[in-house]
Amino acid sequence: MAGSIYGKLFTISTWGESHGKALGVVVDGCPAGVPLSEEDIQIYLNRRKPGQNAFSTKRNESDTVEILSGVFEGKTTGTPISMLVKNQDQHSKDYGDIAVSYRPGHADYCFDEKYGFRDYRGGGRSSGRETIGRVAAGAIAAKVLETMGIKLMAYTRSIGEYCIDYSKFDKGEILNNPLYMPDKECSEAAGNYLKEVMSDLDSIGSSVECIVTGMPVGIGEPVFSKLDALLAQGIMSIGAVKAVEIGDGVSVRESKGSYNNDSFIINNGSIEKATNHSGGILGGMSDGSPIKVRASFKPTPSIYKEQKTVNKAGEEITMAIKGRHDPIIGPRAVVVVESMCAITILDLLMVNATSKLDNLIKIYN
Amino acid sequence: MAGSIYGKLFTISTWGESHGKALGVVVDGCPAGVPLSEEDIQIYLNRRKPGQNAFSTKRNESDTVEILSGVFEGKTTGTPISMLVKNQDQHSKDYGDIAVSYRPGHADYCFDEKYGFRDYRGGGRSSGRETIGRVAAGAIAAKVLETMGIKLMAYTRSIGEYCIDYSKFDKGEILNNPLYMPDKECSEAAGNYLKEVMSDLDSIGSSVECIVTGMPVGIGEPVFSKLDALLAQGIMSIGAVKAVEIGDGVSVRESKGSYNNDSFIINNGSIEKATNHSGGILGGMSDGSPIKVRASFKPTPSIYKEQKTVNKAGEEITMAIKGRHDPIIGPRAVVVVESMCAITILDLLMVNATSKLDNLIKIYN
Amino acid sequence: MAGSIYGKLFTISTWGESHGKALGVVVDGCPAGVPLSEEDIQIYLNRRKPGQNAFSTKRNESDTVEILSGVFEGKTTGTPISMLVKNQDQHSKDYGDIAVSYRPGHADYCFDEKYGFRDYRGGGRSSGRETIGRVAAGAIAAKVLETMGIKLMAYTRSIGEYCIDYSKFDKGEILNNPLYMPDKECSEAAGNYLKEVMSDLDSIGSSVECIVTGMPVGIGEPVFSKLDALLAQGIMSIGAVKAVEIGDGVSVRESKGSYNNDSFIINNGSIEKATNHSGGILGGMSDGSPIKVRASFKPTPSIYKEQKTVNKAGEEITMAIKGRHDPIIGPRAVVVVESMCAITILDLLMVNATSKLDNLIKIYN
Amino acid sequence: MAGSIYGKLFTISTWGESHGKALGVVVDGCPAGVPLSEEDIQIYLNRRKPGQNAFSTKRNESDTVEILSGVFEGKTTGTPISMLVKNQDQHSKDYGDIAVSYRPGHADYCFDEKYGFRDYRGGGRSSGRETIGRVAAGAIAAKVLETMGIKLMAYTRSIGEYCIDYSKFDKGEILNNPLYMPDKECSEAAGNYLKEVMSDLDSIGSSVECIVTGMPVGIGEPVFSKLDALLAQGIMSIGAVKAVEIGDGVSVRESKGSYNNDSFIINNGSIEKATNHSGGILGGMSDGSPIKVRASFKPTPSIYKEQKTVNKAGEEITMAIKGRHDPIIGPRAVVVVESMCAITILDLLMVNATSKLDNLIKIYN
Repeated sequence: MAGSIYGKLFTISTWGESHGKALGVVVDGCPAGVPLSEEDIQIYLNRRKPGQNAFSTKRNESDTVEILSGVFEGKTTGTPISMLVKNQDQHSKDYGDIAVSYRPGHADYCFDEKYGFRDYRGGGRSSGRETIGRVAAGAIAAKVLETMGIKLMAYTRSIGEYCIDYSKFDKGEILNNPLYMPDKECSEAAGNYLKEVMSDLDSIGSSVECIVTGMPVGIGEPVFSKLDALLAQGIMSIGAVKAVEIGDGVSVRESKGSYNNDSFIINNGSIEKATNHSGGILGGMSDGSPIKVRASFKPTPSIYKEQKTVNKAGEEITMAIKGRHDPIIGPRAVVVVESMCAITILDLLMVNATSKLDNLIKIYN
Repeated sequence: MAGSIYGKLFTISTWGESHGKALGVVVDGCPAGVPLSEEDIQIYLNRRKPGQNAFSTKRNESDTVEILSGVFEGKTTGTPISMLVKNQDQHSKDYGDIAVSYRPGHADYCFDEKYGFRDYRGGGRSSGRETIGRVAAGAIAAKVLETMGIKLMAYTRSIGEYCIDYSKFDKGEILNNPLYMPDKECSEAAGNYLKEVMSDLDSIGSSVECIVTGMPVGIGEPVFSKLDALLAQGIMSIGAVKAVEIGDGVSVRESKGSYNNDSFIINNGSIEKATNHSGGILGGMSDGSPIKVRASFKPTPSIYKEQKTVNKAGEEITMAIKGRHDPIIGPRAVVVVESMCAITILDLLMVNATSKLDNLIKIYN
Repeated sequence: MAGSIYGKLFTISTWGESHGKALGVVVDGCPAGVPLSEEDIQIYLNRRKPGQNAFSTKRNESDTVEILSGVFEGKTTGTPISMLVKNQDQHSKDYGDIAVSYRPGHADYCFDEKYGFRDYRGGGRSSGRETIGRVAAGAIAAKVLETMGIKLMAYTRSIGEYCIDYSKFDKGEILNNPLYMPDKECSEAAGNYLKEVMSDLDSIGSSVECIVTGMPVGIGEPVFSKLDALLAQGIMSIGAVKAVEIGDGVSVRESKGSYNNDSFIINNGSIEKATNHSGGILGGMSDGSPIKVRASFKPTPSIYKEQKTVNKAGEEITMAIKGRHDPIIGPRAVVVVESMCAITILDLLMVNATSKLDNLIKIYN
Repeated sequence: MAGSIYGKLFTISTWGESHGKALGVVVDGCPAGVPLSEEDIQIYLNRRKPGQNAFSTKRNESDTVEILSGVFEGKTTGTPISMLVKNQDQHSKDYGDIAVSYRPGHADYCFDEKYGFRDYRGGGRSSGRETIGRVAAGAIAAKVLETMGIKLMAYTRSIGEYCIDYSKFDKGEILNNPLYMPDKECSEAAGNYLKEVMSDLDSIGSSVECIVTGMPVGIGEPVFSKLDALLAQGIMSIGAVKAVEIGDGVSVRESKGSYNNDSFIINNGSIEKATNHSGGILGGMSDGSPIKVRASFKPTPSIYKEQKTVNKAGEEITMAIKGRHDPIIGPRAVVVVESMCAITILDLLMVNATSKLDNLIKIYN
């Protein structure tokens, strides 16, 4: 699994399993001089913490972060920042039965084939708890971006067929409801629907959006490390995501050029765009408009309902998954999407710093 | 633009602009001993060649490939394979007027902001001709994969609202019609529609799918280099793609777990899946079912219709884009999508070779 | 400091400062199925532990390692292995005076210029304690290599002018004397000399060699990731190393081809070499003979003697460095050199696994 | 051979064999806005061209470079720069006999074992002609560095036992004598000695030094991408190099701390060092003094003298190597060492651009 490292200059290396001793991340390449405290990280981690409401797993974890290196006198030093969260409330016995069976919609079978065996406790490395490292690193990236006037805002866009009404978009509502939706009415309707789904012992899909404002123009490295390409990698790498869309996303396949093209205009002497079908990205580079990216999450594969599957002995069986699991993935993944966007954008911002000889001269002469 | 290199072990480095002397690619890390000729590459390149029918640009290029290194006595040697295609039919004067204006939907403005200036001739590096290097490398990757029984098949899935009827899917039809659709009826209807769009001086969006069969289980490196994550990067990096979907894609956001989960079954003693909502990928690793990935292409931003925009001097202007351009991107990009899938999968297959101590022992003991 | 990650497939990410809470490493990409315990790591770490004899710093650290992830039921799982060692005996006040002065031969000045400030306690990240992560990762790499019959042996070759007599080379002696020299007589003479150096409040240089046997032929990736090139990077990256030599090293500049060329011979039906001036590497690839690599360490820059230097205020001052420090670097770095060799060789062994189509077929068909 | 790519932000990808159609390099990540012409590259390439004097191979190559992309209106555009040199004077028949035998001191045997076969014509990829790509890229890097006041000067330091007298160092002499030595007297004596070596049908070793002035302080990324570590990789990767030394190099192993430590002093209000034993690098970062790095080259392994070796059939044979080859490697490698230093330093300079939050703010705010 030589795949737990992400980023070129702002590089994160995550580690940890659902039922191991701890989970964490090493952030290498964070610029020196960024004011940083454990509290900055904790605020982000709390947004993904389990057990906070009716719609999330009963697992009880404080998810308290410790910074072990790379910060001195309240500022980053430029050396690797190691962060750690200890696991506390592991009920490993709950998972004993999945050691020998392959849960539908899960990676159990793939892990066994790839590695010869697997840490089956709570999904091991494929647990949602794996995202702790992403979020801790994302909190740092977001803090650096904020220094440069770049702000991220992610939220739940839809749950099943319950989609927010953009005309009622209320930013302040996002952190106020348990589903992280920017539309109170929709969140209530979706909440009621979710309860039905849960009482059916089932789960449901969802979508999450992230908007990034304040972007400089030209961020992204054609042709393979384009901004949209790396956002796609970063977001698709989050467990359960099955689609990534930029701007108008899948609907562009039915659009005409005369509609889809955003006209450039002059506003107060600056170049802007009259519309934003592009989602803030043209040719793989930021175009100055807000970045708009959307992730579609599949329904939680762990359901209490009985399902058909097979075991390691090659027999067809039925199983109902016990243990603690969320009926929906999107809401708790909102901060994960935001974190992957922050990490990706900061990394590309750093890479872009040397795009012009003028920039090098600005720094060294 | 330190972004023109892709892949970890099977690494491609593409270069070239629309109106430069040539375009090409260096493939580093191709295993030694693969039978390879220029003809193998040419077959792939011919699938993206311009000027072949009513729906593609009139630019006339033979796109003849030369292999300059890395092949000896008809086989790859393990050293870098350098391939080159010369540009022939550049009408650079056609593009003089876009030197000072920013075409809507194009990257002109972003390039100027990022680099201080740009090669404006024919879009420079952001031209569709940039994909020549991808396709030449993709031809090699596909050839290696074929050796291992892995086959790729890409096709146009939809053009505007004209979508193929899967019940009439005819693989043999793909290379038989100018739109690369596996449904003859649909391709004819879409072709007629395209002519309308062209006579309106407009362009239209489309979607392309790629199916990969014969995959071993467990390919993909959690958590950031998952198979779906890197396919998303690779495909989103193709110009004009605004969405990447795996399996059921965006529709998972409205699915229930009991529907979306694919049951494992035993078929002839082997583990298979009863359905394939996952698109052949679970937990970021191949699950043995066919990989199914879909790209949504925006309409060609270059249209003959008059559009509002601004120029470098900061004035609002209108412009109608001259020069030669396709009214649709998908069909000519079919082979590009297939190539990016081949490159990504081969690279991950190579990385996976050392996932188990047993594999190392198989090779060295 | 985006430089704390090393390796392409077997990737290590080290972190931690001399006086922070802890130091550690995340190993990503270790093959699954390797038997591994904390004891395996501890044996290696104990070889670099301070306070073990008259020639090493009085700092008292147990350097007890904890494995936090990536190992299940006594075997590596293929997921990242996180290891941590807590700092215990920090005397941070000893270092207060160096906060405002630049010690000669140290990186204080460079850190301040690069990052704007530095963690001055005990040298921060540039302390010898930084090597804990390297050694913990090296222990794993050495274990994997051993499975394939590859063995590493490092030792102190010289201390000042006291160099081992190769005709008296005694492998068993290496771990028996405090200076890790394979020549008892030499180690005693060198030990006496070291005491003199210490009573002069001075320090002395040294050299360390590593021999690797059992190498398959062809390991190393021309032209930039050659075996010797990456060994040079890995070893030169160890603090205080000022030269890396392969085989005959610097003396080749005075050799003739007729002497330096090693004749190939047939021995028991196998190709071998009559001599080994090449140090086991030809054209950047292992040639089947033992790898021989040598590092030259400068004398410890921290000395008790008074030295001239400057402070942050730009004044010339004199300083005598207090605190605890070794009079010599080589002996405690023996296991660090061995570790960097093990990590580098394992990584290249893994990369080489896909050098031939035949190897891919061996694994996948 | 996934090893032909070098550098993190300023990335070079070299390709080509001695007797293939051409050799070349793709430079990705060169900052935009650097004035660049083919003449800039040619000047560098001419310094390594064969057939220029009595001490270099009779092979006759004009080594004319073509820039195929990445430069527009005389300036780099930020897109990949592809450069190509065609092979002209291949005498492939000269090498027919080495197809089935393993030349001592060469990589023939390693290639066969690694890849299953090899392009035996003129050494294929392990020929000295492989360095053409390095030098073409080095010319660009040196040009960018010059813009920032950083200058490189490499020269032959010794040939056999003939070493330059530093008290007679004459920079102007370097390009004036066929051996690129900065000491006329020494170059004449060495030249006479070389003729003797040649008449003995033998070859001789040599050493090359590179001095870099004008370095900013703090360049280099601890702990694995230190400036000295990457210079060691870059230089050791050049064919025939067996040792890399920084500053005092191997002699530090016999030095005392009180001697080896360079005192910091104040000179005209700036921090400088009274001596430069460190070779301009402390803690893996530039310290403001001139960088001093030295490479030791083994004697050319191809000699006309008869040698013992084996053939592919596993028989012991004797062979005298025909074809055209230099009796010494150092002089023609002077520009290669300079190039690898330039590439390495520019890359680290670019990476360092984001070491401080202040730098990011300088660029984006």
